[in-house]
Amino acid sequence: MLKVLKFGGTSVGSLERIENVAKRVAKIKEAGDDVVVVVSAMSGETNKLIEYANHFSQNPKKEEMDMLLSSGERVTSALLSIALNEMGYPAVAMSGRRAGIVTDDAHTKARIEEIDPSNMQKELNEGKIVVVAGFQGVDKEGNVTTLGRGGSDLSAVAIAGALKADLCEIYTDVDGIYTTDPRIEPKAKKLDKISYDEMLELASLGAKVLQNRSVELAKKLNVNLVTRSSFSEDEGTLITKEENIMEKPLVSGIALDKNQARISLMGVKDRPGIASEIFNALANANVNVDMIIQNKAHSGKTNIDFTVPKTDLNDAKAVVDTFVDNGDIEDDSYNEAICKVSVVGVGMKSHSGVAAKAFSALANENININMISTSEIKISMVVDEKYGELAVRALHEAYELDK
Amino acid sequence: MLKVLKFGGTSVGSLERIENVAKRVAKIKEAGDDVVVVVSAMSGETNKLIEYANHFSQNPKKEEMDMLLSSGERVTSALLSIALNEMGYPAVAMSGRRAGIVTDDAHTKARIEEIDPSNMQKELNEGKIVVVAGFQGVDKEGNVTTLGRGGSDLSAVAIAGALKADLCEIYTDVDGIYTTDPRIEPKAKKLDKISYDEMLELASLGAKVLQNRSVELAKKLNVNLVTRSSFSEDEGTLITKEENIMEKPLVSGIALDKNQARISLMGVKDRPGIASEIFNALANANVNVDMIIQNKAHSGKTNIDFTVPKTDLNDAKAVVDTFVDNGDIEDDSYNEAICKVSVVGVGMKSHSGVAAKAFSALANENININMISTSEIKISMVVDEKYGELAVRALHEAYELDK
Repeated sequence: MLKVLKFGGTSVGSLERIENVAKRVAKIKEAGDDVVVVVSAMSGETNKLIEYANHFSQNPKKEEMDMLLSSGERVTSALLSIALNEMGYPAVAMSGRRAGIVTDDAHTKARIEEIDPSNMQKELNEGKIVVVAGFQGVDKEGNVTTLGRGGSDLSAVAIAGALKADLCEIYTDVDGIYTTDPRIEPKAKKLDKISYDEMLELASLGAKVLQNRSVELAKKLNVNLVTRSSFSEDEGTLITKEENIMEKPLVSGIALDKNQARISLMGVKDRPGIASEIFNALANANVNVDMIIQNKAHSGKTNIDFTVPKTDLNDAKAVVDTFVDNGDIEDDSYNEAICKVSVVGVGMKSHSGVAAKAFSALANENININMISTSEIKISMVVDEKYGELAVRALHEAYELDK
Repeated sequence: MLKVLKFGGTSVGSLERIENVAKRVAKIKEAGDDVVVVVSAMSGETNKLIEYANHFSQNPKKEEMDMLLSSGERVTSALLSIALNEMGYPAVAMSGRRAGIVTDDAHTKARIEEIDPSNMQKELNEGKIVVVAGFQGVDKEGNVTTLGRGGSDLSAVAIAGALKADLCEIYTDVDGIYTTDPRIEPKAKKLDKISYDEMLELASLGAKVLQNRSVELAKKLNVNLVTRSSFSEDEGTLITKEENIMEKPLVSGIALDKNQARISLMGVKDRPGIASEIFNALANANVNVDMIIQNKAHSGKTNIDFTVPKTDLNDAKAVVDTFVDNGDIEDDSYNEAICKVSVVGVGMKSHSGVAAKAFSALANENININMISTSEIKISMVVDEKYGELAVRALHEAYELDK
């Protein structure tokens, strides 16, 4: 079996931890697997380098930032390779360049365009453990680039795809994906398996573990992704394609998103194209609109409600104001004291009554639902912010996720 | 004028010092010169990384060490470039690879084989300051290599040669080459100019400033080399070809080498090839033999005296013992309490009486000379170790080097 293992900054945050990672990698190699390891910079290193750069400039050149920041992962990969060799496991450290990772030239947030795995494959064929510096590649001109936040995960997934690895294991300080945030519902259970699409919908659950970019890439490349803890032996959660999940649960998890604000547009002129004008203007202002609800109001006018991330609220207000000023909208109001609760599960596709159960669960707790939106595998409900945790617990129980 | 400036680890040892370097570079650029800057890792960084590696292994793989150690210079070059850009001086950071430095594959002590200066030239043509990570290159397969101790100086000299720069300035924490070690003779004076060959002979004076490898390369590439202080505005010392030095001083400097031991071989069989056998055996044992003196002894046998670095003495003894054991040598003795005093000057070539003056100077101080060896531009004398400093001061005065 060929495994790509990725260890994040916390997992390689000290020499002792790197030693532990080496032991862990050696054990997997010993079990007969071929191994590629992708490592991040030691925790704190990248921030230190950013502080250094900011000492000189608040807006440093992106090319230089990439040269600067890419050094952290190089150090970790060299150290881990040295540790493995010393333990008697032949290993070879590779920069992103050496590993064949080619990106576009969007410095500090480059996208991987292709991977030439031949150097890695050659060393694997010789029985070596390949240790790759994550987070980095080179553009077509050969300049070093970095992949932005979560970049080492992307490196690992892309490498797993290029090498057609059987598994890509992301080691972090949490041991997998839970049915909901255990800090809200202590009865939350770790999921053994979850589909890519569910994982993407549960972003707010997984964000601390895995960014959507990595899940999307894993889906595209059909990479079996596992998130697990580098500090325990527990099995983690496998994120894979739906077909690989035999028993599809009705509901896999409940997510809570408190970073939402509601914008209500009252008395919107009911002329063709007005909605498109408003939402195009919001898009142009880089406002990320999530749920949208429209309903008839009085005298040929409509009301439109939508949600945006709280961080985008001011930008959204500015856009809306222009429509109020020119009379397209009669009035607007804003509510930041809301949150979004989402029920996610691939089983919904083939089952009816899933939404009804959610509504009754909240009704039983006297929680009023302000907005509802549904997709094939998700039901999202906006409720008052203060009811967020209660709603999560009620839904968790209603779908028997603690069983 | 095109100048290559090299700043060592102490000169870039903190963010404040990097800022000072940036100001210094900017001033030179402002004066109308084109500038390439070569930087070392921030002082302490390389040692820290070596310690990290040694935590895992006392004998880490050289390839990984190169990946590890090359990161330090990348950081400094990125930071200096960021600082220069912020000050309004367009700059671009380059790794050794980007700067076109190709080496052999002797990891951790690679030799520069060629430099393709086209990337640097292109940026210079656009008016940019090029900031190169010193100490590193890539081998023909594209693997990162490092150049060993003093490697950043070598990078600077080689780049100056490849770009046909007018000047290569090495900035350190000392302000140039002195007629002798000022700690021994406070009246020592800084030299304005010195020839490559003199500098090479004065290695022990210059070693703290500049390694012979760099001087040899400068000589080969005909690079005008200046050593000067990064902490003062004083002019440094120009190391250049003899023809560029109009007034050739009789003597340029006095060097003291205390890392010498004398080996005396008594009653060496006087048969053809015996000397060659002994010194070949020493060479094979990597013993660095310096001065050699041979003189007739009794009954067709000879005595041979030679000096080796103290650090090579044990290896040398082992070799000599084999010749004593098989009867080629009657007896041997060793003396570590010696030192070598050297008088160096290109003017000697065309002047007589230089050596005689040295001998009288030492005689006047009742210093006995144990061995003498002379070259075209150097007179070396072995004296008892305790007289070393006195001999230096006597010679410094005899040749009026304080004038």
